[in-house]
Amino acid sequence: MGTTEITDPADPRLADYVRLRDVSLRRSLEAEHGLFLAEGETTIERARTAGYRPRSFLFTSRRAAYAGHVAASTDAPVYLVPDSVAEGLTGFPVHRGALASFHRRRLPEVADVLAGRRTAGVPGRAPAGPARRVLVLEDLVDHGNVGAVFRCAAALGVDAVVLAPRCADPLYRRSVKVSMGAVFAIPYARMADWHGGLAEIRAHGFQLLALTPAPSACSFDDVALDERVALMLGSEGDGLSSHWLEEADLPVRIPMSAEAMSMGVDSLNVVAAAAIACHSLTR
Amino acid sequence: MGTTEITDPADPRLADYVRLRDVSLRRSLEAEHGLFLAEGETTIERARTAGYRPRSFLFTSRRAAYAGHVAASTDAPVYLVPDSVAEGLTGFPVHRGALASFHRRRLPEVADVLAGRRTAGVPGRAPAGPARRVLVLEDLVDHGNVGAVFRCAAALGVDAVVLAPRCADPLYRRSVKVSMGAVFAIPYARMADWHGGLAEIRAHGFQLLALTPAPSACSFDDVALDERVALMLGSEGDGLSSHWLEEADLPVRIPMSAEAMSMGVDSLNVVAAAAIACHSLTR
Ligand SMILES: C[S@@+](CC[C@H](N)C(=O)[O-])C[C@H]1O[C@@H](n2cnc3c(N)ncnc32)[C@H](O)[C@@H]1O
Ligand SMILES: C[S@@+](CC[C@H](N)C(=O)[O-])C[C@H]1O[C@@H](n2cnc3c(N)ncnc32)[C@H](O)[C@@H]1O
Repeated sequence: MGTTEITDPADPRLADYVRLRDVSLRRSLEAEHGLFLAEGETTIERARTAGYRPRSFLFTSRRAAYAGHVAASTDAPVYLVPDSVAEGLTGFPVHRGALASFHRRRLPEVADVLAGRRTAGVPGRAPAGPARRVLVLEDLVDHGNVGAVFRCAAALGVDAVVLAPRCADPLYRRSVKVSMGAVFAIPYARMADWHGGLAEIRAHGFQLLALTPAPSACSFDDVALDERVALMLGSEGDGLSSHWLEEADLPVRIPMSAEAMSMGVDSLNVVAAAAIACHSLTR
Repeated sequence: MGTTEITDPADPRLADYVRLRDVSLRRSLEAEHGLFLAEGETTIERARTAGYRPRSFLFTSRRAAYAGHVAASTDAPVYLVPDSVAEGLTGFPVHRGALASFHRRRLPEVADVLAGRRTAGVPGRAPAGPARRVLVLEDLVDHGNVGAVFRCAAALGVDAVVLAPRCADPLYRRSVKVSMGAVFAIPYARMADWHGGLAEIRAHGFQLLALTPAPSACSFDDVALDERVALMLGSEGDGLSSHWLEEADLPVRIPMSAEAMSMGVDSLNVVAAAAIACHSLTR
């Protein structure tokens, strides 16, 4: 197809790329059009490798050579725009000169992700088999934290991630970026029902461990792990809801320094907690 | 002293609080005046508890009651400004309605931080004794990562942090915020000399462990730990420099999932690596 040069930032063909820093605009635009964005050559390639179908590519002029290379390997349009136009359009300097817009696909069902089978009609890599280690994220609202947790989970061998209905979107630009593409590498699903969601996971034979800094919780190192384990993590502000804490099989904590606690450092960041817990599962 | 109402954002008494999102302006302004900022009531109180001396406080009108309370306990001026003025001045909505500017103090010497003694002329809490577990941060440029590493370190009982000359500032607003005040809770120092800095730490009897995702490195769980351990961490992009890797006693890695590595997830974020490593030291 070759590349197409565009110099007018208002050109409707560039509509997928407007105002990338305007979170509420982007949320509704991406939901309506069923799209997500990837930034930078590596992340774009990872999305393609994971089987996501591109809607279009946008490169700044100095990436013309790479743009030509991409154009030779896709049916999607490849736009080439001057740096200043890219900046005016997106609202910030596109440092790595490469953006792509992809079609989202229907998320698999929770049951299928846990069983390690494909949901009929949902493309993507076949899972390696039934999940044994999963993370369950309650209302993590920060896209950076969600991306970072996916990166940990992938690097440390977690099989799947289940999201509560209100957990932030792993395919939002910032999540994708912080995850270094791990959101493409690890299967995930979103529960439809916050109230009954944990019961469904338990029904698949998972031991539900609620990670909490509460001093009354059991120390993680003392827990006898079942064959299938689901680690539940809560948000930065409030942590896990009391409903989920009650639904869990066991509240577990990562011991913290008494001295730090006396100085007000009374919890770990959710990414640090996820990292330690996932690493402990590998031992 | 009572509170002082100010309605002109250009009033020179508010100069400590201008354009908080302009990183390069803030860096030079804070360095020149030897100040740093804390945001939100909890963080402000932690800075005061840690013995930092306030230059001034700035509250938005709806925090008038708290402002009066603070004014009764300090000699520093307490400014009360309308929300819109605070936003115009700082460049963003001051959500929690509370900012304070503090005097920096001279950092202690590396040798004193490791020995757990006070540097003459530097106020602050007395360390608990000689440091046994320290982190050494090379060129971490991201303030959020530096803050998050301090939070982990404090929560997991690390005794001190040593920074390479080019590591980002722990007292920068974003570091302070992400650390939840842990930058006030844990002693730290900055080495004057990147090239010879590790030799000085070794001279204090520390085993230098270089954390690296390199597959050739020794697995962390297999390392026999000395009485005094220094964990070295590198930056997000390049990791530890080859000079520091060579200077270390041992390169050590946290094992990662082979499947994830084949999909391009080939390292942990530095905060996740720090969390796992610090937690492993506590066992
Ligand atoms: C910043 S913490 C939430 C703090 C909240 N105030 C609470 O009490 O849960 C975010 C999440 O990280 C996990 N977490 C943090 N520190 C932890 C610890 N020491 N042990 C286990 N989980 C922890 C929990 O899942 C928590 O919901
Ligand atoms: C994002 S990594 C840097 C990646 C860089 N490409 C490299 O090869 O070092 C940032 C830092 O986190 C630490 N780190 C990341 N993954 C690690 C692992 N699996 N084992 C040990 N340390 C790790 C290292 O200190 C590293 O310098």
